[in-house]
Amino acid sequence: MNPDEVSKAFVEHYYSTFDSNRSALANLYQEGSMLTFEGQKIQGSPNIVAKLTSLPFQQCKHHITTVDCQPSGPSGGMLVFVSGNLQISGEQHALKFSQMFHLIPTPQGSFYVLNDIFRLNYA
Amino acid sequence: MNPDEVSKAFVEHYYSTFDSNRSALANLYQEGSMLTFEGQKIQGSPNIVAKLTSLPFQQCKHHITTVDCQPSGPSGGMLVFVSGNLQISGEQHALKFSQMFHLIPTPQGSFYVLNDIFRLNYA
Repeated sequence: MNPDEVSKAFVEHYYSTFDSNRSALANLYQEGSMLTFEGQKIQGSPNIVAKLTSLPFQQCKHHITTVDCQPSGPSGGMLVFVSGNLQISGEQHALKFSQMFHLIPTPQGSFYVLNDIFRLNYA
Repeated sequence: MNPDEVSKAFVEHYYSTFDSNRSALANLYQEGSMLTFEGQKIQGSPNIVAKLTSLPFQQCKHHITTVDCQPSGPSGGMLVFVSGNLQISGEQHALKFSQMFHLIPTPQGSFYVLNDIFRLNYA
């Protein structure tokens, strides 16, 4: 797969996992991973997943609008930039969001998330 | 300066330069730099600046809403994630945008932009 295909596959996997079983996102982060969620900085897979699973809604659905991808340097990493809408159950209006991921290759030929920055885009 | 201060100073410098003299942004990019502008991929400082200076407006003003920053790995790089509004002269409504930068340290103690991804966030 080329980088654009890898990034699209990652994004589809990430948000389908988020929307179906947030705790399974633990596999995509490692101890050095960082999440900045609406300005709050969180480090390490357990803390990141604790944050994501504690968000105050049960059901949600991400709809992706754009996915952009660039190599992040000579080490095989990839930067993935996503925009989309987040529909939370019980809420009338979807929320617009932007998110970026820095993906680092693993020895097993996959990727993990080193950096994750999420922001809602308020109207 | 700590990373948050560095990233805020970079963002202020970048957008004040963009809004006053776009061609001077050439100093912030290098030959290996990449810009993805609304999905269009452009590589190298001369091509990037040619794109930015050819955008179809003369005057604009960026207003920054949020700046988030994370170290991008062990090499001293930084990821900077920005959201804000872009007011173009002659347009009634400001445009919402999100943008990310991957900053790499230079031997002179400054940073250059290796990765730049820009997206308008349509309502």
